Amino acid sequence: MVGRTHGVHAEPITLGLKFALWFAEFQRQGARLAAARQTIAVGKLSGAVGTFAHLPPEVEAKTCARLGLTPAPISTQVIQRDRHAEYFLTLALIGASVEKVALEIRHLQRTEVREAEEFFAAGQKGSSAMPHKRNPVLSENLCGLARLLRANALAALEDVPLWHERDISHSSVERLIAPDSTVLLDFMLTRLTRLLKHLTVYPKNMTKNLNLSHGLIFSQGLLLALIGKGLSRDAAYRLVQRPAMQVWEQGGEFPSLVQKDAEISRHLTPAELAAIFDLERSLRHVDAIFARVFGE
Amino acid sequence: MVGRTHGVHAEPITLGLKFALWFAEFQRQGARLAAARQTIAVGKLSGAVGTFAHLPPEVEAKTCARLGLTPAPISTQVIQRDRHAEYFLTLALIGASVEKVALEIRHLQRTEVREAEEFFAAGQKGSSAMPHKRNPVLSENLCGLARLLRANALAALEDVPLWHERDISHSSVERLIAPDSTVLLDFMLTRLTRLLKHLTVYPKNMTKNLNLSHGLIFSQGLLLALIGKGLSRDAAYRLVQRPAMQVWEQGGEFPSLVQKDAEISRHLTPAELAAIFDLERSLRHVDAIFARVFGE
Amino acid sequence: MVGRTHGVHAEPITLGLKFALWFAEFQRQGARLAAARQTIAVGKLSGAVGTFAHLPPEVEAKTCARLGLTPAPISTQVIQRDRHAEYFLTLALIGASVEKVALEIRHLQRTEVREAEEFFAAGQKGSSAMPHKRNPVLSENLCGLARLLRANALAALEDVPLWHERDISHSSVERLIAPDSTVLLDFMLTRLTRLLKHLTVYPKNMTKNLNLSHGLIFSQGLLLALIGKGLSRDAAYRLVQRPAMQVWEQGGEFPSLVQKDAEISRHLTPAELAAIFDLERSLRHVDAIFARVFGE
Amino acid sequence: MVGRTHGVHAEPITLGLKFALWFAEFQRQGARLAAARQTIAVGKLSGAVGTFAHLPPEVEAKTCARLGLTPAPISTQVIQRDRHAEYFLTLALIGASVEKVALEIRHLQRTEVREAEEFFAAGQKGSSAMPHKRNPVLSENLCGLARLLRANALAALEDVPLWHERDISHSSVERLIAPDSTVLLDFMLTRLTRLLKHLTVYPKNMTKNLNLSHGLIFSQGLLLALIGKGLSRDAAYRLVQRPAMQVWEQGGEFPSLVQKDAEISRHLTPAELAAIFDLERSLRHVDAIFARVFGE
Repeated sequence: MVGRTHGVHAEPITLGLKFALWFAEFQRQGARLAAARQTIAVGKLSGAVGTFAHLPPEVEAKTCARLGLTPAPISTQVIQRDRHAEYFLTLALIGASVEKVALEIRHLQRTEVREAEEFFAAGQKGSSAMPHKRNPVLSENLCGLARLLRANALAALEDVPLWHERDISHSSVERLIAPDSTVLLDFMLTRLTRLLKHLTVYPKNMTKNLNLSHGLIFSQGLLLALIGKGLSRDAAYRLVQRPAMQVWEQGGEFPSLVQKDAEISRHLTPAELAAIFDLERSLRHVDAIFARVFGE
Repeated sequence: MVGRTHGVHAEPITLGLKFALWFAEFQRQGARLAAARQTIAVGKLSGAVGTFAHLPPEVEAKTCARLGLTPAPISTQVIQRDRHAEYFLTLALIGASVEKVALEIRHLQRTEVREAEEFFAAGQKGSSAMPHKRNPVLSENLCGLARLLRANALAALEDVPLWHERDISHSSVERLIAPDSTVLLDFMLTRLTRLLKHLTVYPKNMTKNLNLSHGLIFSQGLLLALIGKGLSRDAAYRLVQRPAMQVWEQGGEFPSLVQKDAEISRHLTPAELAAIFDLERSLRHVDAIFARVFGE
Repeated sequence: MVGRTHGVHAEPITLGLKFALWFAEFQRQGARLAAARQTIAVGKLSGAVGTFAHLPPEVEAKTCARLGLTPAPISTQVIQRDRHAEYFLTLALIGASVEKVALEIRHLQRTEVREAEEFFAAGQKGSSAMPHKRNPVLSENLCGLARLLRANALAALEDVPLWHERDISHSSVERLIAPDSTVLLDFMLTRLTRLLKHLTVYPKNMTKNLNLSHGLIFSQGLLLALIGKGLSRDAAYRLVQRPAMQVWEQGGEFPSLVQKDAEISRHLTPAELAAIFDLERSLRHVDAIFARVFGE
Repeated sequence: MVGRTHGVHAEPITLGLKFALWFAEFQRQGARLAAARQTIAVGKLSGAVGTFAHLPPEVEAKTCARLGLTPAPISTQVIQRDRHAEYFLTLALIGASVEKVALEIRHLQRTEVREAEEFFAAGQKGSSAMPHKRNPVLSENLCGLARLLRANALAALEDVPLWHERDISHSSVERLIAPDSTVLLDFMLTRLTRLLKHLTVYPKNMTKNLNLSHGLIFSQGLLLALIGKGLSRDAAYRLVQRPAMQVWEQGGEFPSLVQKDAEISRHLTPAELAAIFDLERSLRHVDAIFARVFGE
């Protein structure tokens, strides 16, 4: 399929690369979540201001052990809220990655692109008003929910600087964001998993879109090959841009325009040009990337 | 051109409607900015805690008059920061509308859509690496800057609750966000104006995209017409969805599939069907909308 | 009572001035809320992409009229979200003013200050662990809730730039923030009103605190009087700072130290000094401020 | 010194406990910063869409090695922005801890509390208008700057979901927040370090404030001792609250009122009561806490 930067066709990629990118990102998120859960898995029974004035530290130690918690080495009336903030920031960060995947699906499901689609059961209604429509509503929903996680994380950050040995301003915040952010992210991850599991993929449309620019996606290879032959970057750029712009504005196939270009042909043989326009060659390192992400 | 909801083709619109929508939105933003500027156009010379202990109110009145400011009816050591927050929130809100327009241009410039493009001067380089590319980089830049205005507004909101008759915590915030947010929004509006003024529009691609769904964009008209003939919504929906899904999955032209559909033809005459598939009829109220937005 | 800047005693004020300041601020907030409610009191029945393709504008006009709404002059599938963002930003801004008042009460209720206290019914328990405590928990709660309104407003700002003629990403956000932010602010305003209505005020403590700095709160008056006699600001500052620092570090009464200061006495008569240290004179313009805020 | 919850005196603590609490918190922050720096210490040279189409992975490996970076296992045109978001969120979280310390100093420097003060050089001017004032302006400044770090982190979170193989909307954000947030936090940490190093501490005022509540800070010990003697919590609470409220409203010393209380004396011997009102006993576990924080 075509890779896109700025929403504009760039160079060939594969759908597997997108999945591998997300896999690696969610591995990072998994590690962050594990660390954040560790950070908040602490307890305290150190009294009203943290001095163990009425109960010795041993009681704290035993109680925490029973609950599977580590005693906070030091506390006030409460566990310090930088720990909770780390947790909610992590939820928001994971939410941003969910949004990223959801955003990609929304883009791939655009009518003009239609390389993938959220699963649409036979007999399912899409739009209530427009019977032909299949809308990426689950993905849009996920994008919205990510905004809420972000917002809640911010409130958690404001909870860190409490007065002296504690004030209770953080409590009203946590009563809302603790259930909301955890439940929302759980919902988002479940929805995203199901969405990806049942994603409809349209390889034919991928091929169609890949060819949409009539070979322009190989322009950088041509540019670099010309530079390799000794041309300055500027000179090479001008040589490549001419047929490229012609394709962009008047149509035609970039490879054949290039092959007919007398000036370019002076520098590159037909075999060299064929290699430049070879899709497989563009993707020759994909397996190496997979090995880096998934292990060999 | 085609109107899109959820990124999926819906029903026909015109490009003028998009512009009119933005015009109306920026009129609202203009009014908000004017109001916010009025809100902060106040002055005070009421002393260290707002009591005029050492200078009578008359001095404040005269000084403010010279500066074109209204005296704040009551103040502490400072003008109350709800006023400034209103101003920065307004800047952020205007930024969100700039982002909205910029986002639309980015979508219209996608390779598969290409109904509009940021101006690209002859001889201009697009991507440094890929000579064929024309990227909506100005619009992307505007989307990023809107995030900064949003962020700064938030800091301004946190500045409202100062201690007693003032603390100076707001000052370090304002020294950064005041120049940044005002200069950024000025830059954004200038850039957006120029971008829209020189926007390249591709009517041919609009027509091509309008036809991309082979008439499916008229499905709601068909649905409503069948309901008008006495069918239940569900029955009508099933009748319409059948040829619609056929087009979606196997291709073909929706109008002709519908015209050949025996069951649908039992309810609607050829003339009625022709009216349903008439583009001009879809857009018959556009001038009325323009009159509402721009006056008649 | 003493006015405080930076949490440090500055010059005398009255409690009424604090109330008047809040009154003026909530008048602004009331006007903002009325405006924001007006902004969102619009309706639309313009169809799937805003073109009135299947229903004429007259139906929209009649329906909106029945609902007490103004028809949006132009819309897509939805009312544009800058309107809703204005509303949620306004709720957050009002929340920040609630926080400001609540923060003041928390400060006044500090053990060392104790000039005011949240109402504490006979027989009510304060702290569950420490029977002597009366904590400003309602005010702290209000400070926390203001963070949530701020956070929600941010999500509303992110809802503004939807795709084309709408995407539904805003919906999941609004389903949470619309009930939450409106109910929370309603709760906050009700709680704040009750809290202020029943606020316990300790005038004796105000007087005690006013005298805590042993007259230092009149130092600016002395400074300005010396400048009025022709001294440079720097020279006057040095003259005043000497006895002021002495009070700060060794105790004693500032007025008597000043009266005994030979150098100062060379510039100011005993009568002039008495006027400088006169509390009533400091507050002579308070009624004028009230008249500006409440009308005469 | 007295420990305070809700701004109200609770039970005795020591200033060292506050410092130890901050030390432990900044240790966590140090670990977070180290982890976040590790997260962004990655490089990529994988080409326009991450496929190594024109340069083999070996070049990336060698270049990254020279720069002390790890090659990102997979990338698009850019390193994925969840990494940068983690970094900016971490800066904001550290900023919140700076704010927490600064907020404490502001509280301790209040005129009525005055247990600590920002260093004030001989000859230094405090307030320009009020020669007697020493304001915690550095701490207030730090509180403001924390708001900016928070705001910037939010913009970084919005940068995560880029389009396809990258769009450049994150760039305008990063150009501002990258220098701003890093420089600001560096400045904040330097300022905080210096501020703490030169902090003026007033042990006499600590003692004075500790005695301000006339022994009420020992009320919880009394409550628990009575419960230990077999009274129900409610019954004990009522016994304790009576003399406590008397002190609160009419003055007097809590220990002597308690010792004279016939009902309480029925349950507790004079020796038991003396232990309850013993400051040293309240603090007997402080060294154990220090050992947990600093190692033994």
